[in-house]
Amino acid sequence: MPNLKLTLAYDGSDFSGWQVQPATQTIQGVLASSIRRITGEKILPQGSGRTDAGVHALAQVATFATESPIPVGNWLTALNDILPASIRVLRAEEVPADFHARKSAKSKTYRYRIYRPAICPPFLAHYVWHYPYPLNEAAMQQAAGLITGEHDFTSFAAVDPEREKSLNHEGHEGTPRENRGEDSNVRRVSASRWLRDGDEFVYTVRGSGFLHHMVRNLVGTFLLVGKGTLAIADMTEILEARNRSAAGATAPARGLCLLEVEY
Amino acid sequence: MPNLKLTLAYDGSDFSGWQVQPATQTIQGVLASSIRRITGEKILPQGSGRTDAGVHALAQVATFATESPIPVGNWLTALNDILPASIRVLRAEEVPADFHARKSAKSKTYRYRIYRPAICPPFLAHYVWHYPYPLNEAAMQQAAGLITGEHDFTSFAAVDPEREKSLNHEGHEGTPRENRGEDSNVRRVSASRWLRDGDEFVYTVRGSGFLHHMVRNLVGTFLLVGKGTLAIADMTEILEARNRSAAGATAPARGLCLLEVEY
Repeated sequence: MPNLKLTLAYDGSDFSGWQVQPATQTIQGVLASSIRRITGEKILPQGSGRTDAGVHALAQVATFATESPIPVGNWLTALNDILPASIRVLRAEEVPADFHARKSAKSKTYRYRIYRPAICPPFLAHYVWHYPYPLNEAAMQQAAGLITGEHDFTSFAAVDPEREKSLNHEGHEGTPRENRGEDSNVRRVSASRWLRDGDEFVYTVRGSGFLHHMVRNLVGTFLLVGKGTLAIADMTEILEARNRSAAGATAPARGLCLLEVEY
Repeated sequence: MPNLKLTLAYDGSDFSGWQVQPATQTIQGVLASSIRRITGEKILPQGSGRTDAGVHALAQVATFATESPIPVGNWLTALNDILPASIRVLRAEEVPADFHARKSAKSKTYRYRIYRPAICPPFLAHYVWHYPYPLNEAAMQQAAGLITGEHDFTSFAAVDPEREKSLNHEGHEGTPRENRGEDSNVRRVSASRWLRDGDEFVYTVRGSGFLHHMVRNLVGTFLLVGKGTLAIADMTEILEARNRSAAGATAPARGLCLLEVEY
């Protein structure tokens, strides 16, 4: 039974996130119903991780096993013919049976865009956080470096009623479970930086995995450093507190985009 | 009574065009209700011309007279605070009483974007026409030049049941009415060219005024030249035919954007 890997781009604006839910449109749900229209199979493709409502992806990865005899080269066109224009399959390829979008992932890269000028062009409104107020961008750049390495990111994890939900949300389990236990909030961040890109101030972060809301909570906390509410070194203290209430508010979903999943 | 000129950018995706209509969301309607919330006045701002549902603007112009004592410098912020993020006021300025967004306009510039690669990024889906099939772009570039100058553009005008509607649609009356009569479809096009811009093939046209659907009908006809269905020189014959059925189909609204209004 062929195991297929899809690389997907999507505009999350009109979806209630990745994960299939009853009575609402999700990326996973639309993908599943498109596969069903093509092969008749009732398959739930597995993503590298969930993205929340309004979060975008340039290259999300999903895997699923199919019994269909459709040649792998035809899947891309077949799916793109059926999917809405807001979801595009960029690549479809056959992978070994033990390859799994989430479990096989080594790391993921997210980007968060802040738009700085006074007036935000209407064409960017779904893709950036418009924040035209003063920010000490140099301080935010310094603070970003302090979270690299292996840390317990509990202070930046959403406090979810369902523990399991939190574990799989916005990230996979990069470190094998046996090494740290089911409940660990330890993640390894290999890159974390803010860069000016024209009118935008852009945060890029790569890590072994991300807890639910982790990137958006990091951005919300860096913003407090930019405003001067927090000092740069406070980032380290907040990490050590292992307490969600120590960190800043959750930045809006629309500025966030899953850039890449590394295997 | 101050006469105000607004310069507006909007994403037309979620609107039923510029012109106010009952029971549907339009740019003019949303603008009018925002002004009413600010001053209490029931004013219908006049645009430089109508744009159709799904058509965008980088710099549409609208004028209205107000009795409100609000300083002109406060209008930009007051409106942007109320308007949806899909409509932005870029400038608000006081102009002489006889200045009128449509009647005072000398020319307008439109842009039409065609996206050429096989897969269209979801983030561009609302702003381009995705046409990945072969096109002789050089032939389209040559054909574009043939419509410059003063011509009767009846072949490229929508056949509208209401004559008046057609006259004001997608353009103003650049030439004084007394010089050519109410029913004239004569317009002067001062620039008309296709240019490659990375993955996009982009049409830019500037003219004294545009008939309803004129730019989209021109694009649909240039496309027939690109496909080889029409010869380059056929553009001249189609102009001379003064018959809508001589030209190509109307290109989709989403690729069209009003770039600028010149006064």
